[in-house]
Order: sequence, then C-alpha cells, then structure tokens
Amino acid sequence: MNDKRMLIILSGPSGCGKGTMLAEVVKRTACQVSVSATTRQPRGGEIDGVNYHFFTREHFEQCIAEDAMFEYAPYCDNYYGTLRSELEAIWAQGKHVVLEIEVQGALKVMAEHPEAITIFTMPPTIAELRRRLEKRGTEEPEVIEKRIARAIEEIPFADRYQYIVWNDKLEDAVDDFCAIVQAEENRTKYSKERIGALITSC
Amino acid sequence: MNDKRMLIILSGPSGCGKGTMLAEVVKRTACQVSVSATTRQPRGGEIDGVNYHFFTREHFEQCIAEDAMFEYAPYCDNYYGTLRSELEAIWAQGKHVVLEIEVQGALKVMAEHPEAITIFTMPPTIAELRRRLEKRGTEEPEVIEKRIARAIEEIPFADRYQYIVWNDKLEDAVDDFCAIVQAEENRTKYSKERIGALITSC
Repeated sequence: MNDKRMLIILSGPSGCGKGTMLAEVVKRTACQVSVSATTRQPRGGEIDGVNYHFFTREHFEQCIAEDAMFEYAPYCDNYYGTLRSELEAIWAQGKHVVLEIEVQGALKVMAEHPEAITIFTMPPTIAELRRRLEKRGTEEPEVIEKRIARAIEEIPFADRYQYIVWNDKLEDAVDDFCAIVQAEENRTKYSKERIGALITSC
Repeated sequence: MNDKRMLIILSGPSGCGKGTMLAEVVKRTACQVSVSATTRQPRGGEIDGVNYHFFTREHFEQCIAEDAMFEYAPYCDNYYGTLRSELEAIWAQGKHVVLEIEVQGALKVMAEHPEAITIFTMPPTIAELRRRLEKRGTEEPEVIEKRIARAIEEIPFADRYQYIVWNDKLEDAVDDFCAIVQAEENRTKYSKERIGALITSC
C-alpha cells in the first residue's frame, strides 16, 4: 500500500471545541496535530514545543528567509506559522498532519495544496458559541465579543472547505472527524500499488 | 439541513463479500440496497421484490421505452437494470441508495451522475477470491474459473472509483464502508442551509 501522508486542515471559530475534539481524534486515528511556531510571548502554563515553538522575531524571520516555513502569517504584531520540518517529522512517523489554522491561512494552504483534506468545525448556534466562550471564564467580555465578531466573519468561508463538522455534541463531532479520516484513507490513490501487485500476481 | 439523497455505487468481483458486507452496512447506516429488475428466471429460493424484481421481457422493454429505467444493460441474453421508481422510493424514506452494479454499468452511471459516491471492493488476493468462491460450494469449477477471469478483467477499472474497500476482514470492510458513508454525509453541500440559517441568526 502506498504511504499515506495526509494533510488535514482544520478551521473553525474559537470556542468551537477544536482543541478538545483533536485531543480525542489523535487517540483514535493516525492523526497528529502540528505544533505552530510563534513570536508571541508564552502565556502562563504554555510549554515550548508542546503548545507552540516559541521563536524570537529574528529566528522566525531567518526561517522565512531560508524557506523553512510551510506557511506563516503575521497576526497582531506577531508571526504565527508552521515549520516544514514539523510536518516532515509527523509524516516520517507514518501519521497524518492536522494543521489547525485560521481561515485566511487555510485558504492560502489550500491554493498551494489541493490534495489537502479540509474540515471546518461549526458551533450549533451563535448563542451556544457565546455560552461556551463565557463558560471558559478566561476571557474578558470585550474579548468574547471580538471572538464572536470574528466567528461571524469566518463562518461564510466554510463553504470553501470539503467537510463541515457540527459540534452539537462533542462525541458526535469526534466521531465525524474520525470517519472523515478513515474514509480518506480508503481513497483509491492509496491502493494503486496494492492493486498493481494484485494484478501482476494473476 | 439539506436533504441528503446520496447515490452510492458499489462494484467488485463476485466472491468479494459484497452481499454480506451490505447486510451489515444497512444496519449501521441510512443506506438501502436497491433491488434490480431482471428478465432472467428466479432461481430456487429467490423472492420477487426481495432478490430481484422479476419482469417479463415485454414488461422490461416497456419500462425502457417509457424511460422508467435509471440504468439497464443486457447480460447473457437477459436484461438487468434499476427502476427509477425504486431509487425514488428509497430516497423518499430519507435513505441513501446503494446500487450494486458491475463495472461497465457503473462507468455509465458515473458519467451521467458525477455526484455519485463510488466504491470498489477488492479481495485480499486472487487466491483468496478463488478460495471464497470454492467455499460457497454452489458453483461448478468452470463457473468459478469464469468468475476469476471476470475479476481479473474488472480489477483494473478500480481506479475509476473514488474509494477502495479491501475485504481482508469482513468487520474492517464494513467499518470502512460505514466511515465513507458518514464522511460523505459531512460534505459541505449538505450544510449550506444550516450555515445560511446560522449566519442570518446573527
């Protein structure tokens, strides 16, 4: 069988439960979430190499200059991006890369990588999204309103993605995500070698 | 949410376990296998309307003339085909149609229905396919050889299908088929209405 090295792009409003969903997905599938690099300062409890690769601005710009970044974008005076070496390391383990990335970055990656599997995760309703953001209790009301406004901007781009996973119930959303991974593993392109071997064995 | 009325085309060599697989798939998903119409005589135990719709040649040709057949083909001096009304009845129940159909018929349906989900099921090896056909004990050796020869002719067309399900182990094959159905139900086109409602609710 051919080596399956999938690139899965996941976007969706903040508060949709992407992190919780992915924590389950990696247990049940051959997916691994790529760790982004950023120039922003670590927040309390964040670990270098786990939550982010924390880079200085100079180091990040050197990575850009050396074409070491698979994708990157400036955001709120900082850079965020993904190292090519990060993806290669995941693929070398025979796993699929999940790139959790916001819409504008995702559209750029899609244009360059039409083979990517693209999933947009959706809150049941905007009211429920607000409720979930408030429940976290970590954000100020104005930050929550900013995130809601951002969600409303992002949602119309969902139709540029191949799949929509509605996060009405976490278990169902995880199950849908895993089914998408399993279905994509059954794509004909991954069977070409084995079919060839079957035919020549006749 | 939009009405999901999928058309799933399943092909694969005789002896691959398509029937056994589908019997499980219909229990676990919203799939229903369409019953073909044929002009051939019923064999022992076959029930009209369950295994096939048994038609006279005159009635079948009338259905063709009235454009009542979704697809049909002559095979070994008999007609085989699918009534449009059969598919409509399945869709009316909110279920997906599974059309189990041989390769040439499938290619014709694919050309006319590019929205169809297409799955080819594959035996682990040709030796195993022979073993399974022999184990059935219902076929003469020359019939088995004819089926093997037919399989070898059909397998190269597998790359015209979107998905390959290897039937190494029945449970895994059923699981793969169900995952494909579930993933396809998450296609963005089926969420357009719900996304529209989410946006207008803001």
